[in-house]
Amino acid sequence: MTDAPRPRALGRKSIRPSLVPRDLMGDEELAGVWTAQVITLLPQAFPGVLGESLTGRALQEGVWALRTIDLREFGEGRHRNVDDTPAGGGAGMVLRADIGAKAMAEAVSRARGDVPRLLLSPRGRRFDQAMARDLARRDGVILFCGRFEGVDERLIEQFGLAEVSLGDFVLTGGEIAAQALLDATVRLMPRVLGNHHSAEEESFSSGLLEYPQYTKPAVWEGRAIPEVLLSGHHAKITAWRQAEAERLTKERRPDLWRDHLAKLGRPEEDREL
Amino acid sequence: MTDAPRPRALGRKSIRPSLVPRDLMGDEELAGVWTAQVITLLPQAFPGVLGESLTGRALQEGVWALRTIDLREFGEGRHRNVDDTPAGGGAGMVLRADIGAKAMAEAVSRARGDVPRLLLSPRGRRFDQAMARDLARRDGVILFCGRFEGVDERLIEQFGLAEVSLGDFVLTGGEIAAQALLDATVRLMPRVLGNHHSAEEESFSSGLLEYPQYTKPAVWEGRAIPEVLLSGHHAKITAWRQAEAERLTKERRPDLWRDHLAKLGRPEEDREL
Repeated sequence: MTDAPRPRALGRKSIRPSLVPRDLMGDEELAGVWTAQVITLLPQAFPGVLGESLTGRALQEGVWALRTIDLREFGEGRHRNVDDTPAGGGAGMVLRADIGAKAMAEAVSRARGDVPRLLLSPRGRRFDQAMARDLARRDGVILFCGRFEGVDERLIEQFGLAEVSLGDFVLTGGEIAAQALLDATVRLMPRVLGNHHSAEEESFSSGLLEYPQYTKPAVWEGRAIPEVLLSGHHAKITAWRQAEAERLTKERRPDLWRDHLAKLGRPEEDREL
Repeated sequence: MTDAPRPRALGRKSIRPSLVPRDLMGDEELAGVWTAQVITLLPQAFPGVLGESLTGRALQEGVWALRTIDLREFGEGRHRNVDDTPAGGGAGMVLRADIGAKAMAEAVSRARGDVPRLLLSPRGRRFDQAMARDLARRDGVILFCGRFEGVDERLIEQFGLAEVSLGDFVLTGGEIAAQALLDATVRLMPRVLGNHHSAEEESFSSGLLEYPQYTKPAVWEGRAIPEVLLSGHHAKITAWRQAEAERLTKERRPDLWRDHLAKLGRPEEDREL
């Protein structure tokens, strides 16, 4: 099953292909494998981009596992309805707590270990690199993807869902947000980026934005690579990159720059801004 | 071609199926249709989630169009390489300016009207609802999806690429960010959400987070819908929702709350926080 291009449909569940031996699967979570369970009305949209490139290879290699839970399967009536009109009136439809609860119960019953339960929602705490690092160290995650006008508040209360937002914008549903969250998290797991790359050197790891990068050709369209980068003088290159990262952060993200200075115990420089 | 499940491959271009008559296509942009051109190493990942639900229907109906430009097609050598090692050393690979420029030139030559050129990058300005509204009013967008360690800075300069970030986290590439940006933008276009929904009532439109939503059943797991919502008293319902939206915003997002008060010309209340 490792070369199957689509999730295997097992009734309402589907398990992504992986190199983990089949007999570790079955009804329990994959033993010891970081597992994302995604509750969604669009299971066919997964793994999507996550099935490509580094995250896709990691999925194939069993570094992580992905299970989609199709919310529609828990719907009621001929059309398997999952939503209803908002109490108190208003536009749109609200996802029913009792329907959502069945999907959540299914996910919770299969989760093993320390598995946070998150609802993707523009009302939530903004997802950031620190949250990605934290999630990567857990045993997996349950992601509830909202659609429609919203989710019945009682579902959030009943399951203690932590609301997480991708940013201050509104999406048609939580699916793309879930994929972004998983991509940022999975790439921090051991073996995913490979030896040629260090996640330590990039934006937000140091609290600074990344310095400008250049590669061949040395001159292109009359634009030359900064001389220092071709000097072979490692200390100077490091200093130039640090200065550029600081300049960019100061210019573009005064908020990050303040946090950076505070972490360094130099809050007095803050006043210069 | 309206029912084709995959983009039509036209050499290095692919055009999403749409109900726009075939003869409007050809080598020019779709006349008058908001068009996203996405430059990516993973064209197969598009439309992804964007092909589903509301954005997918809008794509089918020709409300917007999506063209992917495969960066790999512009690569050099037997492996069609698009990247090289960073000048000055360091981990990872940097996307070459000369290769990226060929893809950009292709996109620019086809763009019609007012079409911003964006690079998805964690160093960029954070994408938000105001940016989505702005983009939805333009004629389209060119999205350059980075991968690897970064993109040669000279490409950014040469094409005046505006860097846009989804948030303070690092993705394996710009593709998911591009999908999020397009989803948030397309849903604001006329006819996409339909009459049953108003984009005016949701998070960030008012500058406040959304109030809690409820639907049937009236009591679930011992949890009742707040009485006021079942009262039928519209003024009271509106007041309750406003108060809840304000409470949630104050609690969760003091930054938004401050902006909200400032917009109302009541900055003095800010001090209470």
